[in-house]
Amino acid sequence: MSVETIERPITPTVASSHVSTMKAFVMKGLDRVGFVEKPIPVPGPFDAIVKTTRALICTSDGHTVHGAIGPRDDLTLGHEAVGIVHEVGSMVTRFSPGDRVLVGAITPDWLDEASQRGHSSQSNQPLGGWKFANIKDGVFAEYFHVNLADANMAHIPDEVADDAAVYCADMLSTGFLGAELANIPIGGTVAVFALGPVGLMATAGARLRGAGLIIGVDSVPQRQTLARSYGADIIVDFSKEDPVEAIQNLTGGQGVDSAIEALGSDLTFQNAVKVTKAGGTIANVGYHGHGDFLHIPRLDWGVGMSEKSIVNGLCPGGRVRMERLLRIIQSGRVDPTRMTTHTFPFTHLDAAFEMMDQKLDGIVKPLIVF
Amino acid sequence: MSVETIERPITPTVASSHVSTMKAFVMKGLDRVGFVEKPIPVPGPFDAIVKTTRALICTSDGHTVHGAIGPRDDLTLGHEAVGIVHEVGSMVTRFSPGDRVLVGAITPDWLDEASQRGHSSQSNQPLGGWKFANIKDGVFAEYFHVNLADANMAHIPDEVADDAAVYCADMLSTGFLGAELANIPIGGTVAVFALGPVGLMATAGARLRGAGLIIGVDSVPQRQTLARSYGADIIVDFSKEDPVEAIQNLTGGQGVDSAIEALGSDLTFQNAVKVTKAGGTIANVGYHGHGDFLHIPRLDWGVGMSEKSIVNGLCPGGRVRMERLLRIIQSGRVDPTRMTTHTFPFTHLDAAFEMMDQKLDGIVKPLIVF
Amino acid sequence: MSVETIERPITPTVASSHVSTMKAFVMKGLDRVGFVEKPIPVPGPFDAIVKTTRALICTSDGHTVHGAIGPRDDLTLGHEAVGIVHEVGSMVTRFSPGDRVLVGAITPDWLDEASQRGHSSQSNQPLGGWKFANIKDGVFAEYFHVNLADANMAHIPDEVADDAAVYCADMLSTGFLGAELANIPIGGTVAVFALGPVGLMATAGARLRGAGLIIGVDSVPQRQTLARSYGADIIVDFSKEDPVEAIQNLTGGQGVDSAIEALGSDLTFQNAVKVTKAGGTIANVGYHGHGDFLHIPRLDWGVGMSEKSIVNGLCPGGRVRMERLLRIIQSGRVDPTRMTTHTFPFTHLDAAFEMMDQKLDGIVKPLIVF
Amino acid sequence: MSVETIERPITPTVASSHVSTMKAFVMKGLDRVGFVEKPIPVPGPFDAIVKTTRALICTSDGHTVHGAIGPRDDLTLGHEAVGIVHEVGSMVTRFSPGDRVLVGAITPDWLDEASQRGHSSQSNQPLGGWKFANIKDGVFAEYFHVNLADANMAHIPDEVADDAAVYCADMLSTGFLGAELANIPIGGTVAVFALGPVGLMATAGARLRGAGLIIGVDSVPQRQTLARSYGADIIVDFSKEDPVEAIQNLTGGQGVDSAIEALGSDLTFQNAVKVTKAGGTIANVGYHGHGDFLHIPRLDWGVGMSEKSIVNGLCPGGRVRMERLLRIIQSGRVDPTRMTTHTFPFTHLDAAFEMMDQKLDGIVKPLIVF
Repeated sequence: MSVETIERPITPTVASSHVSTMKAFVMKGLDRVGFVEKPIPVPGPFDAIVKTTRALICTSDGHTVHGAIGPRDDLTLGHEAVGIVHEVGSMVTRFSPGDRVLVGAITPDWLDEASQRGHSSQSNQPLGGWKFANIKDGVFAEYFHVNLADANMAHIPDEVADDAAVYCADMLSTGFLGAELANIPIGGTVAVFALGPVGLMATAGARLRGAGLIIGVDSVPQRQTLARSYGADIIVDFSKEDPVEAIQNLTGGQGVDSAIEALGSDLTFQNAVKVTKAGGTIANVGYHGHGDFLHIPRLDWGVGMSEKSIVNGLCPGGRVRMERLLRIIQSGRVDPTRMTTHTFPFTHLDAAFEMMDQKLDGIVKPLIVF
Repeated sequence: MSVETIERPITPTVASSHVSTMKAFVMKGLDRVGFVEKPIPVPGPFDAIVKTTRALICTSDGHTVHGAIGPRDDLTLGHEAVGIVHEVGSMVTRFSPGDRVLVGAITPDWLDEASQRGHSSQSNQPLGGWKFANIKDGVFAEYFHVNLADANMAHIPDEVADDAAVYCADMLSTGFLGAELANIPIGGTVAVFALGPVGLMATAGARLRGAGLIIGVDSVPQRQTLARSYGADIIVDFSKEDPVEAIQNLTGGQGVDSAIEALGSDLTFQNAVKVTKAGGTIANVGYHGHGDFLHIPRLDWGVGMSEKSIVNGLCPGGRVRMERLLRIIQSGRVDPTRMTTHTFPFTHLDAAFEMMDQKLDGIVKPLIVF
Repeated sequence: MSVETIERPITPTVASSHVSTMKAFVMKGLDRVGFVEKPIPVPGPFDAIVKTTRALICTSDGHTVHGAIGPRDDLTLGHEAVGIVHEVGSMVTRFSPGDRVLVGAITPDWLDEASQRGHSSQSNQPLGGWKFANIKDGVFAEYFHVNLADANMAHIPDEVADDAAVYCADMLSTGFLGAELANIPIGGTVAVFALGPVGLMATAGARLRGAGLIIGVDSVPQRQTLARSYGADIIVDFSKEDPVEAIQNLTGGQGVDSAIEALGSDLTFQNAVKVTKAGGTIANVGYHGHGDFLHIPRLDWGVGMSEKSIVNGLCPGGRVRMERLLRIIQSGRVDPTRMTTHTFPFTHLDAAFEMMDQKLDGIVKPLIVF
Repeated sequence: MSVETIERPITPTVASSHVSTMKAFVMKGLDRVGFVEKPIPVPGPFDAIVKTTRALICTSDGHTVHGAIGPRDDLTLGHEAVGIVHEVGSMVTRFSPGDRVLVGAITPDWLDEASQRGHSSQSNQPLGGWKFANIKDGVFAEYFHVNLADANMAHIPDEVADDAAVYCADMLSTGFLGAELANIPIGGTVAVFALGPVGLMATAGARLRGAGLIIGVDSVPQRQTLARSYGADIIVDFSKEDPVEAIQNLTGGQGVDSAIEALGSDLTFQNAVKVTKAGGTIANVGYHGHGDFLHIPRLDWGVGMSEKSIVNGLCPGGRVRMERLLRIIQSGRVDPTRMTTHTFPFTHLDAAFEMMDQKLDGIVKPLIVF
């Protein structure tokens, strides 16, 4: 059941008679990216084609280019985008060309068995809901294809700008998931490990779930400031103090009710287990890209009997999820645009990608304008 | 928050004027056990003293003697027992001398903060509900002390013999917990790793929770036979085939909905993660006595995004739990006495202990008669 | 959001060029049923046509004919059936003509918003997953149409006969749901109100979830006997004693942890609330066909603060559910065929319908053979 | 199991040798209140005596005086208070005289069976955790008695004033419970029926749980304004429009994910069922003081199959709960003092009580200063 054994379905059908082409930003090979021309995709009966207006670069796009999921030659990158409906299949009933839409980074099949079990992000195979820039072309193109459009897209309310809505594709959904999985009681204590975009939205999510004390862990001043603005009460700078010790002190030696791993580091994961009190929950939403194992510290896990639950999850998708997230923005609960530290036109995506990959210039999240 | 940092409270007060003594089987030092005379304990206002009638030896008693929880000189061993109430404190209202009672292996404090959070087995400190033969004298004695007697003891129904009831102290409670934590859907698939007494009761528990297919993993023929009698549909003998591969084959490549680790081995834990499908649950009820870490296989855990939950727990205690477990025996759902492969008088506990420690003569569970 | 306001979609398209016809048993009008000839339906791209081999009559079929859901002229009745795949749509991948299949009574849309929220039986509208003999032709015909076939059918294992499998369409799924919703702790106490087919399967379900004491309530001797065979420990005959008082006595005045209403009577519902202890759960799976209101007894509900949860549900559908239920039969956990008190050929369905409607001859469940 | 059948335990022992007396505000008889002199209570070994500093009057105090729970002659009224520890029993370890403490309105027994089942507010009997001004003297006195002090009191942090902390005894705990029980998804839609103090805190609680749209229902302008300040997005004035229709319109005909009944009216309860979508949750935290029944509208409940859960609860107590609520105030998430519309000295409690009972002068919550 490992991730590497998954089969690669064919990219959505493109009719050869379709003469129109578009510009797409692709992984050309290991550690190589660039623009290519591709045919504009055409929809199957339940699908839609969206004309991209805004996209965001995710750290995981860099992982992909560096080989994390194996070779992906000429695969269009990107999974976070909003746009305008360009074309819909014959069975699509809820959307029409011209509609302004948000598309989830994860676009489940919904008819498969994992969805019936309540795990649509794992549809057909582990992580199978993750299709964009994984098992089909992504969103860094002038147009992109959406499977099961009625189920996987949402209308963007007039009050919500594209610049904000695009954060619902992945960042709000994944970050909030961290908080939801963490089983935070009202007034409970939470530690969020790493304050990149996912950790920042996990912080906002912990606030949304009613945490009484949110401790953010990061060393980058700009992220610390953003975290405070999203609801962190206290910041622990791991470059200046031992975070486990610091969190124990901040909680009177009790540890936290809930810890959220939002980085994808084995060490951070171990720290999350250590700072969580017996009976608490460790929620992993970080993508672990290295090593054969994550390590659970045996004694801190109470020799396997401490009632510390370790849970994880992949970004939830679906129209209902998207509508709920948009409502959070519409009602002013959370403003994700504060994370947009840089803006680039689509034509400069190569420069943006390099900057994000290298984490230059204090970048948090670069917005791509089409 | 590690287990080794817990403080050791004083053994319950024994009034010096109390002249009566009793025989107790103790850990004399590392790898050394034997009988000693001790004063019969006296109860505090909420406590009771029970005259032991039956007890069981647990594998973890052997762990303790071999140093798993540090030095415990002259500590009475044992945590699974039933008996007759000998004396009660002034505030005890539900029990009187002469009552036949079951006492949980775990006797929580109930007034502490972990209990208020729903984790009474972790009361006051991680694993803090585990008092017998850990932070106070155990039950391998002619009499033993029970804290908060109204909350931690249960009357044994007339229809239930002591020989059966004694299994509710730990084996049914821990084994069933494995099945409860594993979140088994009606008709779901379950793998139980290791078919010692806890694994056997996890098997019975999986059957009680409605599993549709129960796969037991063990190599000992006697345990395999017992497992079938408790509801295992298929046995995988890990000495003859790779259990991960076998379970994948048995489930059409899907893996199981739920896996239960009932041994306390890192390798078995890893296998449990591997055979569980995305969205499933791994329930650990094995006591992990070795190594610095348990290892989560990164790819099999879906790079931290497979929605495989890893949960654990310590044997639940309390009157309500005990009453429910006794009802399972009373109604004939489960007969635990099939696990009693050997019976010894209390005076031969040293021989029984040696046999259990060495797992001689196909021993599963030795019953001690007082 | 009321049930009566639902819109009625069109019966699945039937191509006019399709000359073949079949026999169907329909509601001709209020209180009138009979056979008619209809065209054999044709599948849409995701659909299948099944040739019926076995069907069961449900009490709710009678409700429909007596007007419970309004006029339904010439609507084919029946929602419980198994058969052989006759034809599949172009997008169906998991099934081929000749496959022996079980079809859920409830066939959700899976792409709609309620399914995304985890309530697929309510797809598109309250109770919207209930399509057969409600908003499209049912299964009392030589052939019937299945929407989203890959998601809503399951292969029947070789070891499971059609006569047994057909019970998974509704009876096992609904009855077990009662037990699942009732939140039964292992060893807990349960009362099942009414021991018709749903109540009998709720009894079996309570046993599957690990109830320690199951009290069945009914006055019909044959049903009492069946209930004992499915796991009821005690039967309360409401025609001979007050069931509320009897259940309180049987539980030492505590009431039960869980009560299941499997009849659809306001009085029974009230009794279920009364016999449930504070903090317990009342699970309603009975179809309430009469009256403007169900009544919650105010004082027994603790003036609205007793922590007695009242939950309900409609039969779950879907391939995964069906596969799990079939596994319960395959492994011999439950044998539903004991409920088959009568068998009729399809051509005598009118007589069978009359007998079921009048509950003649101690009928529990009549099997229809095609 | 009805509320009226509960037995009345004796008021905590007061040693006759204890000469000190105090002023207490009592129910003298049906519809009659007034001050009396009573002995200052003395603690049992696990108890504490608290010198009152602040208290709040609850609408339910008025219910009691008007006979809702039967005769209670000379019973001291009031259940919401903070104060200074005056004396502690010999077994109390966490508190000392002079400590500033919050005491829960509900003070469970924790050792009883309902607490072991996770329903401590129902300890010993339905609603049994409600002791103050019900089965023992309340807090409207210069001193009051607290059972199981270590478990039922919490230290008030320096940053939290008594004027704010006193709201945690009942209002925050009950109001937030409404939101917790309502199972609100992040970004979900919520309707709160009635915006008295409990409804206002349910509104704040819904915001704390991440609701995306909160609709408050009330007709009193002052309450509407407060509700907006606590997070309500939209107010529906039931005196100007039909609230069911209005809420359906505001949710595009979908209804809400969650409805909270915070009044205790049968009509409001019915409306809550009506506006909740299939699969949603109705959380009742209103005290229903009248009528034999609450009425569930049959069709709106989907003939018993809509998957609308109806849950209720009594204010949670306990040290852990109190500490979490205090953290919410300490961190500035919620400021309950905006509900304090009036302040009275203890000596004027009779006037305050009258004003609250009659809901004069736009009163929301009167604070009593000792």
